Amino acid sequence: MSVSSSPRRVAASPPARAAAGDCSVLRTLELLGDYWTLGVVRCATFGLRRFGEFEHELGIASNVLANRLDRLVAADVLRRVPYSDRPLRREYVLTDSGRELAPVVLALKTWGDRHVRPDAPATRIRHATCPSPVEVVVRCPDCGTLPGPGELTVDVLGDAAPD
Amino acid sequence: MSVSSSPRRVAASPPARAAAGDCSVLRTLELLGDYWTLGVVRCATFGLRRFGEFEHELGIASNVLANRLDRLVAADVLRRVPYSDRPLRREYVLTDSGRELAPVVLALKTWGDRHVRPDAPATRIRHATCPSPVEVVVRCPDCGTLPGPGELTVDVLGDAAPD
Repeated sequence: MSVSSSPRRVAASPPARAAAGDCSVLRTLELLGDYWTLGVVRCATFGLRRFGEFEHELGIASNVLANRLDRLVAADVLRRVPYSDRPLRREYVLTDSGRELAPVVLALKTWGDRHVRPDAPATRIRHATCPSPVEVVVRCPDCGTLPGPGELTVDVLGDAAPD
Repeated sequence: MSVSSSPRRVAASPPARAAAGDCSVLRTLELLGDYWTLGVVRCATFGLRRFGEFEHELGIASNVLANRLDRLVAADVLRRVPYSDRPLRREYVLTDSGRELAPVVLALKTWGDRHVRPDAPATRIRHATCPSPVEVVVRCPDCGTLPGPGELTVDVLGDAAPD
């Protein structure tokens, strides 16, 4: 799918250019857009919680992992929860905001299952009561359809008047 | 939402650990998981095509942009298309595979609009014929519902038997 209804229209008035500094996508990528940070988010989304689990799963250096966990706590994606008093040990649990990143992880998985590992997806994520893998889809809340290629339009808000 | 139906079940048998080397999410992040690469994908998804447009939009150094464009062409996300013969100039167009990254970009936007820029989203992406922003949702193809928090299960495929 494409998010421009007409490439010519978009080229004549690039929708994102005027808004780049305030773009939600770029601002989110500033917070989360590196391999290790998104890797930790992926692990947490898949149910891992403990420092050693993340370390083993990702093969990440402990100082880099500590840095990414600190960042994700600061960004309100993870929170630290004690699971042992003596010695004090804490695990990392997704916040409500962090759980809302699941569509990002699942969209990456959907693309990867299709284009990077089409022969053998390593995991299947499904509705607990149904057999098939879930899908990440783009849906129009007004008409309830799933808009296809070329059916989406980008409006610039703010100074530029929306359509 | 969470992708484990029961944190205890997942903790007892971490679903991703056995499969990390083959994980579609991590493999996709190896290809695309850095700020500039995903930034270029975001721009292409929003309709930009030309080197100068990406450069201006992202404030990216030209050598870094050239590197990321080469990588995205090699990964079959973008393809080079001539738009001028004299001098030869080429623009970058999403391939079919690249267009399928739109849910990743839109999922990042949905999260960012809500958690990074809740006051003022800079753009609105909508079905061309409807007024409201599109949503990125996780959908079960079997029962047609949108599974909520705790309703998803991760199966490890391959050596470990799926449920």
